[in-house]
This record gives sequence, structure tokens and C-alpha cells, in this order.
Amino acid sequence: MPYFDAASAAPPHPVARQALLAALDEGWADPARLHREGRRARLLLDAARETAAEAVGCRPDELSFTPSGTRALHDGIAGALGGRRRTGRHLVVSSVEHSAVLHAADALEADGGSVTRVGVDRTGLVDPAEYAAALRPDTALAALQSANHETGTEQPLAEVAAVCRAAGVPLLVDAAQSLGWGPVPEGWSLLTASAHKWGGPAGVGLLAVRKGTRFSPRGPVDEREGGRAPGFPDLPAIVAAAASLRAVRAEAGAEAARLRALVDRVRARVPALVPDVEVVGHPARRLPHIVTFSCLYVDGEALLHALDREGFSVSSGSSCTSSTLEPSHVLRAMGVLSEGNVRVSLPRGALATDVERFLEVLPGVVDGVRRHLGAPPVAPAPAAGEAEVVVDALGKRCPIPVIELAKVFDRVPVGGLVTVLSDDEAARLDVPAWCDMRGQEYVGERVVEGGVGYTVRRVS
Amino acid sequence: MPYFDAASAAPPHPVARQALLAALDEGWADPARLHREGRRARLLLDAARETAAEAVGCRPDELSFTPSGTRALHDGIAGALGGRRRTGRHLVVSSVEHSAVLHAADALEADGGSVTRVGVDRTGLVDPAEYAAALRPDTALAALQSANHETGTEQPLAEVAAVCRAAGVPLLVDAAQSLGWGPVPEGWSLLTASAHKWGGPAGVGLLAVRKGTRFSPRGPVDEREGGRAPGFPDLPAIVAAAASLRAVRAEAGAEAARLRALVDRVRARVPALVPDVEVVGHPARRLPHIVTFSCLYVDGEALLHALDREGFSVSSGSSCTSSTLEPSHVLRAMGVLSEGNVRVSLPRGALATDVERFLEVLPGVVDGVRRHLGAPPVAPAPAAGEAEVVVDALGKRCPIPVIELAKVFDRVPVGGLVTVLSDDEAARLDVPAWCDMRGQEYVGERVVEGGVGYTVRRVS
Repeated sequence: MPYFDAASAAPPHPVARQALLAALDEGWADPARLHREGRRARLLLDAARETAAEAVGCRPDELSFTPSGTRALHDGIAGALGGRRRTGRHLVVSSVEHSAVLHAADALEADGGSVTRVGVDRTGLVDPAEYAAALRPDTALAALQSANHETGTEQPLAEVAAVCRAAGVPLLVDAAQSLGWGPVPEGWSLLTASAHKWGGPAGVGLLAVRKGTRFSPRGPVDEREGGRAPGFPDLPAIVAAAASLRAVRAEAGAEAARLRALVDRVRARVPALVPDVEVVGHPARRLPHIVTFSCLYVDGEALLHALDREGFSVSSGSSCTSSTLEPSHVLRAMGVLSEGNVRVSLPRGALATDVERFLEVLPGVVDGVRRHLGAPPVAPAPAAGEAEVVVDALGKRCPIPVIELAKVFDRVPVGGLVTVLSDDEAARLDVPAWCDMRGQEYVGERVVEGGVGYTVRRVS
Repeated sequence: MPYFDAASAAPPHPVARQALLAALDEGWADPARLHREGRRARLLLDAARETAAEAVGCRPDELSFTPSGTRALHDGIAGALGGRRRTGRHLVVSSVEHSAVLHAADALEADGGSVTRVGVDRTGLVDPAEYAAALRPDTALAALQSANHETGTEQPLAEVAAVCRAAGVPLLVDAAQSLGWGPVPEGWSLLTASAHKWGGPAGVGLLAVRKGTRFSPRGPVDEREGGRAPGFPDLPAIVAAAASLRAVRAEAGAEAARLRALVDRVRARVPALVPDVEVVGHPARRLPHIVTFSCLYVDGEALLHALDREGFSVSSGSSCTSSTLEPSHVLRAMGVLSEGNVRVSLPRGALATDVERFLEVLPGVVDGVRRHLGAPPVAPAPAAGEAEVVVDALGKRCPIPVIELAKVFDRVPVGGLVTVLSDDEAARLDVPAWCDMRGQEYVGERVVEGGVGYTVRRVS
């Protein structure tokens, strides 16, 4: 059963399993205690720290083990902000960071600080010049992911690190998606990662803080992990995390090339096999194992369930799968189609035959969902002559507003207008995206009773 | 090799190991995802929550899994304080809580809140009336451990819960040491625990919050665990924690009786076998598996190392084992001897033969440490006639100040005074404790250049 959701959680690497089993027997005691069981645990912890530090590219005493990547981000951001409080309370982030970063930014704003969210282009890249312009005299911290978790797009880290260094602002790099594939370029002040993303166990994050970086932990004092990660350490998981990081790194070169070829095939074939599809993310600057695409007139959750029935486990960043019913903030920031979004993230060892079978079943699955939702035919019929049509999709969730738009579009002549009324936030993204894909003109939006009217002009 | 430090970390129960192994294969995916691996993980998580909630005595939706007992305490206290911020920012704790609670209290004070630390008697018990008197109209939260981690003393929880309820103040119970032995009495609003204390894995704490308890999590928003424990859950460890809690509870009755008999034997025999020993903690209201005693004229760390060489792993709350060189806050609050402190905490399955062998080697080990430190003979020689002697132990660590005191004590007649000068904080505790044990009169302390002078009057 092919599992294509490694970017959520990778199946444990065999080395992680073996190391965890061994450390369960040897590493259950408190490494802070002086008796033999404690000393044995301390040796395991020290060795794991050295191994992980080598992979990160830092000194062991710069590295703390946290209970998760999210905690590493929360505590790393809070500690870095606390350490630079005299400088100011301004934080710079990209608009496509992991939600743990964006929620930390929201918390800072709620507490009286300020945040600049640097946008990205349609491929998901930040512009280093725009990032530089966001840095201020009162900027305490800047954060940028090494690569995006939904699109795989790799950020221009070295360039952004240079502008941060020039401004004297520490840069926190969220390396959760990339650390298993190779070291992060020099220039970061803080680095975070998450073991279950590289095939390590759950329960382990990394927080590296370069010597000389001001850091003042939030919350109650605790002596563990250099004062940066309170609580009894999960030593078996830490040992497994370090061992598996070393193992996946050793295999990374060959496996990245293999997976990149599979992803290239998906990127090339999906638009050829499925009509009205947009492959999103940077075409070249990207992680080897992630590809995401969006299908017009499709509900992401329905597509995900249909693929699940065919035996494929994928993820979706589209609005309908989120508990908040909001479109993915990443796709929104990129200004690309969010409806019918599918993320394929291949685990290590993913089989080419499974990828081929995915490509075989995908067209039928998308077609089935579209039929079920009553999606319009691919090309509109000749114009019927109405100068303007208003279609009411209030109360209907994505992708229905775009389907309704497309269904009536053939009723207006070239030059005519169609306005779709919707109260689904995703329509703000998906109506312009539909226009881009169809070569039609997006006129704009206006508030109407109960929602928003999105107007499109037919130009062909 | 007998391991007698279960109160630090218990060796994993076989059920924990088995459950963890099974869940490694079945429970590595993200339980928030909709694909089959995610749904399977969600089923495991839901089942673990039901099992743990049953043991705690709460509803599953009241229970969150945290990365450790410390995180459960930090986040539980912060969330409860945040939820009652309109009421006030006053916190009541006992003076013998776990350091995670006391450090959270310190953090509240540093942030402008206020704390009342309710004292304990010589057996370690809080007085419910004194606890009630500490509650104020602006008290946001009260915290009390179910049983102490150094002495095993069980607190009068039901009585304190009643006074909190009468005052309308939520009570947080730290059940870390007791939950494996049985449910916590009714009346708590928040409850915390730690899996590695009951034979579960590291990496799992419990935070239960009763419906109706105001709770406002600190820090960035996160949807996991009811919004109370951010980050990807360590599902294999959670499954193992829940399964082992059920397993140890099923065995708790018989095993508690067996261990209690062994502890009773230690409590009875140690004072008979070793001169100048004080067994501390409540004689009856106590956990089945913990006993702690303090030996005059002994350095706790030296004693611990000597016992380690004999094959026994124990812990010490005395000053010399702590990285801060401060005496145990628990022993200090009780006003008992802190020097030469040894905590014996028996794991499940501890052998009676090992306990007997411990009793066999202990007298020789203590005697060896005392000889090495130059401890005085047990009974002082007849008085030599000096009316007052001052002995300078400045710059010398515990137990040297008390040894020096005892050595010169026979030089003053009944009615004469001995003053020992010391800059070791432990002397404040141990000189009065020596007086108690010797039936001599502790006169008081005064500041001297470089330290404190502690004066004793010879009365026999």
C-alpha cells in the first residue's frame, strides 16, 4: 500500500527502530543521576548529541533535544526574542513558514510585539531584497524555512543569511523538511528540525543555538538540555533520532537522485494526464521528494478519500481538508489554485512501480470526483449572448463556486462579465487562479450581502 | 545489580516495551491525517486516551498527553493561571512540591504575580487549615502533590481539595509519584503525571483538566491534544504509557503490600544498624516504595558513590549531589537533617534478598565514609572546661561543619557554648538537626565575616 505522505511523517527508518530498541534497555534511567544506570544513560545522551551535532554542523553544546519540531520552533523563537528584547520586539518571517512559526508570530503580536510577513512569488520563493527591506533596527529575529513543507520549494537561504548578518539580526532556519537530505548552508544563528520527518521516531526535535546568539528561555527554569528544553529527556527516542539521521544522510545522495527522477515524472505526466491541473512550487529549486498540484473543480478532501480507496496515502493543503476550512496559507501566499490540492511526498524507498500506478489511477479518480460534483466540460460552449451573469454560490464550499462560475461562463459573450457570489474564503484564491488557467480576465471583488462577489471578464 | 531509584525513573514495565514495539509499526503516522495510516494512528491515540483517562478517573476529552511530567506541570500551571487571570495572579503551592512547580511559581513572581508557599511539618505534611489560610480572593490556582518524591509522604489531598472547593480555587494535583499505585482522590481540577515514574516510557506526561475549569494555554496556538500540548504526538510512547499504566495498576495492590513490607524493614533496621541516622518522612501516610534517611557526618555524594561501588543505585537529596550545592528544598522545608541523605525507592519486582543485602552493606559503607571524613566518635568525651569554643569551618562543605562542631563539643562543659562558622547553606539545616538528634540546645545564628555563626549550648 503506497504511502506518499512522508512530509507529514516518514515511516521509521530500520536504524531508528533498532536504536530505539537497544536504548529502551540501556537508556531508561535519568542521565542526571550519578549511579551506574544514570551514567550509562548520560553516555548515550552525549553520544547522540555528538552524532546529531555533526549532522547539523554545530558543536554538541550548541544542540538541545526538544520533544518535537513544533516545540523547538516555539521555544527557539521565544528564547531568541527574549534574548534580544532590548533590541526590540519585531519579528520577520516568510508568509509560507510552518504554522508553528506563524502561530508564534501571532502570539508575539497578541503580546504587543510586531511582525513582518515577507511574501513569496508564484513559485513560493522569497526575494532576498524584499527580506532585507523588512529588517528594522528593532528586529529581534528573522525566520526562514530551508524548504517548504507543501511545495518542496527551497528558499535562498545563503542570500537571506547574508542580509540578516549585514543587519545584525539572528536568523532562525526551520530545517524540518530538509535536514535528512543534507546540511543547511552556513549563516544561521538558530536551527530547528524534527526527527519524524527524516525517518526518526516521534518525540524528538532539534534546537541548535550558535554560540554568541543571545537566548533567554521563556517559562520556568529547568536544568535539562542547556536550560532550553525542560523535562525528562526521551532518551531512547533521542538515540534513535541521532542514529537514523546519520543513516539517512549516508544514503541521501543516491536516494535523492532516485526520488527526484520519480518526482520529475509526476511533475511532467500529471498535467498531461489530467486536464485543468496546476503543478505548484519552484520547477528547479526544490526538495527531491515533494510535488504538489491542484486540480480545478475538485474538492481536495474528496480527492484524498478517493485516492485512499485506490490505496494511495497522500495529503492535501486545500481548504476542505483543514479543520478550519481555510485554504492552505502556503498556496494562498503563492497566489495559486488551492482547490483540489494534492501533495505527493515520497518516503525513502518509494517504488517506481507505485508511482506509475498512481499516474495510472489519478486521471480516473479526478474525473470521478469532478463528475460527482457536477463540474463543467473543459471548454465552454459558444456564448449565448447575456452581457452579465450573476451566479449565487453563497453557502457553498469550494470547489462549487468555481464550478458554478465555469458552468455559466458560456452564457456571456467575449467582453461580458460573470460575477460569482461566495462566502467561502477559498474563492478569493481560486477564482483568480481559474482566470489564470483559462486566460480570462479577473476584474476584482466587492462586498455583497452575505459574502463577496468575484467578477470575471470573458476575453476569449 | 539492584536499582533502588525508581522515584527518579522506573525501569520500563514489560508491557510498556511490548506496546511500544507494536505501536512503532502501527502508530508512526500523523493521527490528524485522513489516509489509512493516519486513521490507524488516530485509533491508537483514541484508545490510549481512553485507557489513561480511566486510570486517572476522568473523561477522555479532559486528558491531554504532554511530552513529560515537567511540561504537564509548566503548561498546566500556566494555562490555569491564564484562564483565571481576571480573578488574580496569586498562586498557592506547598514548599515540598517538585521543582517544576516551584520554578513555575518563581516564574510567576518574576512576571509580577505572587506566590504563597505553604510549609510542612517535620514529617512533610501540609496542614489543611494552614493551606486554607493561604487562599485569597485573588488566588488563581492552588497546587499540591499527591505524595512527595523524596520522602513518599502522602498529602491530605481530600481535605485540601475541600478547602479549595470552598474558596472556589481550582486545585492542581501533581500525581507523578502516586498514579501508578492508585487513583487520586476526587476534588482536583487539574492533574498531572509522568509515565516514566510508573514504568512507562520517557516522553509522556499527562495533563487532565476537568470540564468547567478555566484554562487558557500559554504560547502559540496549536490544535493538538485539545490545544493544550503543542507538537506532533509521540504515539508509540503514548500507547506504551497507557498500556503500562493499566498493567501496573492491575498489579498495584499486591505489589504495594510486598514493597511496603520491604520499606518497613528498611525503616526499622537502618536506625538500629547505623548510628546517628534519621529516617525522614511520615511514618504511616506514605507511598509503598520510598524511604529516605539521613546520616550524620556523611557526605551524600560520597555515600552514593560508595553504595554504587557495592552495586546499589540510590539517590540523594542532600546538598552535595545537587549541581547547585544547595540542600534539598524538601528536607529543608521539613527542617530535618539533610547531610548524608539517601533515598531508597524500590522498583516493582525489587527483591527481598537485595534489600537484605543493602542492609548488610550499609553500616560498613557509612562507617567508611565517616572515617574518611574524620567524623567524631558517637558519644562526646567528658567536658574539658572551656566555656565557649568557636570553630571555623568557613570554606568547608557539608558535612564538615557538623563534624567540626561535634569534634570540639566535648571541650565545653554543660552550659557552655560552641559556635561553628560556616558558609555552606546546608549548615543552617544540619546544625539544628544535629542538636535535635543529640538532645542539645540550638541557640541561634548570627552573621559573621564570610559566613554565618551557628551557636549550640551543651545541655547534657
